[in-house]
Amino acid sequence: MNTPLPRPSGRAADQLRDVRIERGYTRHAEGSVLVSFGDTRVLCTASVDDRVPAFLRGKGEGWITAEYGMLPRSTNTRNDREAARGKQGGRTLEIQRLIGRALRACVDRKALGERTITLDCDVLQADGGTRTAAITGAYVALVDAVRWMQAKRMITTNPVVGAVAAVSVGVYRGLPVLDLDYAEDSDCDTDMNVVMNDGGGFIELQGTAEGHAFRRDELDALLGLAETGIATLIAKQREALAA
Amino acid sequence: MNTPLPRPSGRAADQLRDVRIERGYTRHAEGSVLVSFGDTRVLCTASVDDRVPAFLRGKGEGWITAEYGMLPRSTNTRNDREAARGKQGGRTLEIQRLIGRALRACVDRKALGERTITLDCDVLQADGGTRTAAITGAYVALVDAVRWMQAKRMITTNPVVGAVAAVSVGVYRGLPVLDLDYAEDSDCDTDMNVVMNDGGGFIELQGTAEGHAFRRDELDALLGLAETGIATLIAKQREALAA
Amino acid sequence: MNTPLPRPSGRAADQLRDVRIERGYTRHAEGSVLVSFGDTRVLCTASVDDRVPAFLRGKGEGWITAEYGMLPRSTNTRNDREAARGKQGGRTLEIQRLIGRALRACVDRKALGERTITLDCDVLQADGGTRTAAITGAYVALVDAVRWMQAKRMITTNPVVGAVAAVSVGVYRGLPVLDLDYAEDSDCDTDMNVVMNDGGGFIELQGTAEGHAFRRDELDALLGLAETGIATLIAKQREALAA
Amino acid sequence: MNTPLPRPSGRAADQLRDVRIERGYTRHAEGSVLVSFGDTRVLCTASVDDRVPAFLRGKGEGWITAEYGMLPRSTNTRNDREAARGKQGGRTLEIQRLIGRALRACVDRKALGERTITLDCDVLQADGGTRTAAITGAYVALVDAVRWMQAKRMITTNPVVGAVAAVSVGVYRGLPVLDLDYAEDSDCDTDMNVVMNDGGGFIELQGTAEGHAFRRDELDALLGLAETGIATLIAKQREALAA
Amino acid sequence: MNTPLPRPSGRAADQLRDVRIERGYTRHAEGSVLVSFGDTRVLCTASVDDRVPAFLRGKGEGWITAEYGMLPRSTNTRNDREAARGKQGGRTLEIQRLIGRALRACVDRKALGERTITLDCDVLQADGGTRTAAITGAYVALVDAVRWMQAKRMITTNPVVGAVAAVSVGVYRGLPVLDLDYAEDSDCDTDMNVVMNDGGGFIELQGTAEGHAFRRDELDALLGLAETGIATLIAKQREALAA
Amino acid sequence: MNTPLPRPSGRAADQLRDVRIERGYTRHAEGSVLVSFGDTRVLCTASVDDRVPAFLRGKGEGWITAEYGMLPRSTNTRNDREAARGKQGGRTLEIQRLIGRALRACVDRKALGERTITLDCDVLQADGGTRTAAITGAYVALVDAVRWMQAKRMITTNPVVGAVAAVSVGVYRGLPVLDLDYAEDSDCDTDMNVVMNDGGGFIELQGTAEGHAFRRDELDALLGLAETGIATLIAKQREALAA
Repeated sequence: MNTPLPRPSGRAADQLRDVRIERGYTRHAEGSVLVSFGDTRVLCTASVDDRVPAFLRGKGEGWITAEYGMLPRSTNTRNDREAARGKQGGRTLEIQRLIGRALRACVDRKALGERTITLDCDVLQADGGTRTAAITGAYVALVDAVRWMQAKRMITTNPVVGAVAAVSVGVYRGLPVLDLDYAEDSDCDTDMNVVMNDGGGFIELQGTAEGHAFRRDELDALLGLAETGIATLIAKQREALAA
Repeated sequence: MNTPLPRPSGRAADQLRDVRIERGYTRHAEGSVLVSFGDTRVLCTASVDDRVPAFLRGKGEGWITAEYGMLPRSTNTRNDREAARGKQGGRTLEIQRLIGRALRACVDRKALGERTITLDCDVLQADGGTRTAAITGAYVALVDAVRWMQAKRMITTNPVVGAVAAVSVGVYRGLPVLDLDYAEDSDCDTDMNVVMNDGGGFIELQGTAEGHAFRRDELDALLGLAETGIATLIAKQREALAA
Repeated sequence: MNTPLPRPSGRAADQLRDVRIERGYTRHAEGSVLVSFGDTRVLCTASVDDRVPAFLRGKGEGWITAEYGMLPRSTNTRNDREAARGKQGGRTLEIQRLIGRALRACVDRKALGERTITLDCDVLQADGGTRTAAITGAYVALVDAVRWMQAKRMITTNPVVGAVAAVSVGVYRGLPVLDLDYAEDSDCDTDMNVVMNDGGGFIELQGTAEGHAFRRDELDALLGLAETGIATLIAKQREALAA
Repeated sequence: MNTPLPRPSGRAADQLRDVRIERGYTRHAEGSVLVSFGDTRVLCTASVDDRVPAFLRGKGEGWITAEYGMLPRSTNTRNDREAARGKQGGRTLEIQRLIGRALRACVDRKALGERTITLDCDVLQADGGTRTAAITGAYVALVDAVRWMQAKRMITTNPVVGAVAAVSVGVYRGLPVLDLDYAEDSDCDTDMNVVMNDGGGFIELQGTAEGHAFRRDELDALLGLAETGIATLIAKQREALAA
Repeated sequence: MNTPLPRPSGRAADQLRDVRIERGYTRHAEGSVLVSFGDTRVLCTASVDDRVPAFLRGKGEGWITAEYGMLPRSTNTRNDREAARGKQGGRTLEIQRLIGRALRACVDRKALGERTITLDCDVLQADGGTRTAAITGAYVALVDAVRWMQAKRMITTNPVVGAVAAVSVGVYRGLPVLDLDYAEDSDCDTDMNVVMNDGGGFIELQGTAEGHAFRRDELDALLGLAETGIATLIAKQREALAA
Repeated sequence: MNTPLPRPSGRAADQLRDVRIERGYTRHAEGSVLVSFGDTRVLCTASVDDRVPAFLRGKGEGWITAEYGMLPRSTNTRNDREAARGKQGGRTLEIQRLIGRALRACVDRKALGERTITLDCDVLQADGGTRTAAITGAYVALVDAVRWMQAKRMITTNPVVGAVAAVSVGVYRGLPVLDLDYAEDSDCDTDMNVVMNDGGGFIELQGTAEGHAFRRDELDALLGLAETGIATLIAKQREALAA
């Protein structure tokens, strides 16, 4: 239809930004992916280590963990460098815990053996949705790292059991929309991050209404948008991994 | 019905634990509430300060913030004291950010004026659901602090616009249940924390499925349980505040 | 005699505040005591751990250590949370070192075996004398933890050799007084904390005169008050432990 | 000539790696440059801020400062994230101090006015020579930021007085060579970083011989190589800035 | 008399070590004293600053504060450098708080005006009694700083009202002794640090009995020794200041 | 020649300050040297430890490391104590890394066995050139520690293979000068620290031109001065070690 849309970007309510997944972006990591959701660009690397954290030692299973960071000038105004401030902020910790849980949800940790895969998600350029882009890209980096392990015959069974992707949805000026960019995110009543797997199951839901509470029907509309968006993202991941 | 229930506590699926809200628990704070959800006991104090954080100075509005802590032996095995370790962990930061957002959702910050109310939520004894108990109790402490300000004629308009409460829900051995205790929480596929207001609107939804993804119908059942539970909690708050 | 006394509380110079010792205040710890010296309320828990610090490993003896904290709004105006500031202040470290030394003075560490008992003393409400209340309460929590170990047959000999209690004394407006509350403490020339055992021996003496130096005869009067006060406190401990 | 060369890369002794300078690599910063020295890739952004550090306030001059970081998996094996470890290491501090001094050497700080330009140099991929690439790229980002200020009419005089670039030189298996890559750097007796301006003046020299001390004639050969290399780098900067 | 004494050093029970107070030990500080109690050597500097801490601003009075440190190899085995570990330990904080309180006890802070004098006490060589040597030496450095201020006509009234010195006493193998050295300190049942002024008043008493509690008569004997020792130390300070 | 020289101290351009090396300055360390370059006084201790850092364990070689600190009032105005600030600054880390590399350059680490020698260099009084004095003095402390090990028959081969000393040079008001004091250092265009061994080889060169770039001929003049100065310093070390 041709009715003018209220989204600053001109996108339809259910339209993702341009999503690109570039494998092998850097050379050293076992998996290295540059994922872009429009102007949001996150470098996701997967590093394989032959140790597990202390709480798992001797249990015959592996671990998947994530770290997240934003380059100081990935944003519109410069943020302090967390390494210089001497600690990671609450938002950073919250996001990296989320990424870790999301990725663990698609891994059989027994099949991984006593190894850790660390997913580093570093935001080179931010325009909203960095955590959902990070999860979506980190999944591809994880698969590449697992393929590397298979090529090295470190594992015989593929520990990756299904795919995981994430997208944000929100109510922007009364309209439920998919994949918020920064202009929408900063002027939005409700913001929800949704992580799903390729079986259509929910792995994580995080919805927040700072200003205005959302009703059950709004929630339903948002979940519907997320389901559609994630199906597309999982197709993009598959395509990237087939290349 | 008399079919035996699978919950370790013997509660019905939609049954809250025994909830108590004790006002004036300590003497110095402008609001001081001991909230109990069964064996979970959280001391929530509200402190009024005549300053706002730097980012709000001169804007004519106030701030609501929260801090959360667990006493080292509030839990089954002793946890390191965060003050001694030299930093608050990711879980702590995540919870206190959540509490702050939840309480801000029921406050008109213009009506508060350039003041900060800090909600300290300290867990004396933990048995699951500490963050939802904290939000539920902190709301009552906040109202007491606002009444104190009104009594002192610091404000003329009541800045509290509605009530806020929170509860956890989860899928325990296949059954959607309300208000998880520790025994259920640690053996549960899906865990969701829900914050709602007295208008039935959602303020925050945080659902996590580490092991097993949840379907849309499970989500719907959980949201239904949360709606019922929160309605009861808001009635308990009202009753406590009327005492 | 009936001459009116200058103490803000109306207490006699040698009169303790109302002292209560409530065992089993929380559920998880091996010992858990809420001790009150008037409006000062401190939660003391004792946690048993099957390890000792590195410097004691393999030496066949145990360790007793203490940690101290004040809830941010235990005081008249809110204090910063030490966990959020990222370090324990000098006063905190000084107090927890004192509590640890005091309790070690009544324990045969060989009889304890290679175990650590940690005494967490958290101030829920402060009105002066928190460290002396903490020592007095922690002793009872320690005995409960030892009884728990005996019940579990972890030890055969009782490692607790005598009782320990503490009280503050000071010169308030020229009058030596026992058990200072906050109103006295903040308007007092000399303040002394005294730790003694049930044999009448001194374990720790810490006397400070910021404004005005104290004479030997004042010191003697203060020590006399402390001896009396501690005898009463030790009787209260015994009574609580007999209940 | 066709004699086989000892350099692992097959480069001639006085041959730089392939150097690329890509302006406008990210969108938000006033200057944003991806600089590559072979496989070493550093993202250099310049951020303009209208404040100066406390020690310069009210003095009518500006400041140039730099921060440096390596993404955890920019290297062959993963390094701990400095933000997670809670501090920047000695090497990082040393490098960012060097970058700051180098860039200040080409700026008239009076002409800049009371403003700070921060150069963030983040290593996306490391293969030796990250600090020299960072200085060379940061210069171009700095010029872009100054042009942005000129376009905004924030300044009338160009504060950049000359160009600055840097290169490493070293004695590799007895042969003085230019622009060490990681394979050479890690197997090298002497390693020197040289910063020069476009007038052929030295701004910084840092030569280190951990294993084997270097003679004056070796030093002379290294300085000769550096002079040649830097002349080429300055030509590359000019070319990039003319594009 | 010739009865053999039990002290490892051969000193009489009431005999101080050789005490030296060397003024002007370093050049930059307003007061700079090297104090030796036998082999214990502490460099005490006094620095005058024209600001006061925030809590005193605008109140027309000054502040005296102290910092304490031990060089890593001032002791028999090397201690970690506190600057490298990233924090000052509990013992350090306790000692520097003690030194600050002790010195404030002899200063009229109104007469000082809104200025801070910082006493840095750095142990070059330790052999027991570093805190008491520090207090004794810091007093002399403080007087020198005050004289410097008087010479500069920064103050008209002498803010130093009396002298302060400190000594340790203890029960060594049953015998009350004065001024413990390391050999005695580490093999001692009771250890007490005593700070007094030149009027014979007590400023601080800190007695500790980790192993064995001390009786009132032992305490009396220790206080007697301390009184004698401090009288001698104050005479030494006077002599040094007269030189 | 008799032309008046511009150096504030009246020294000739190639004249070192009065250099003194006092061995056995403190009692506990295996090597303890007070080195003075004029008014710059640095206490250098060498401590032998029977362990090596983790990265060397089991490799049959030792380690030499250094730590550096300035007493807060070693300088003209008081600097914050790094232990109190909670971290070592960039300058400190840079200097201690330099001292460590310099000293490792004269040690055969295989001959040392799996031991660490830590060189603590603490500045008691600063007047420029603290790092070069530290290296020069630490070398002597290192030799003393090695002699102590030989006396204890811990090693049979001398691991010290040659001598190491350091000096600063700079261009002061157009004139290349040797061994800058603070007055020169703070008013100097170019400042270079040079570390050399007794074979005339360069171990470390660190030249900086914040204001004005230096030409190749100035560099040559500076290197010539450094060579002369270091030859003298090495003779002073030899003399001190022969005493």
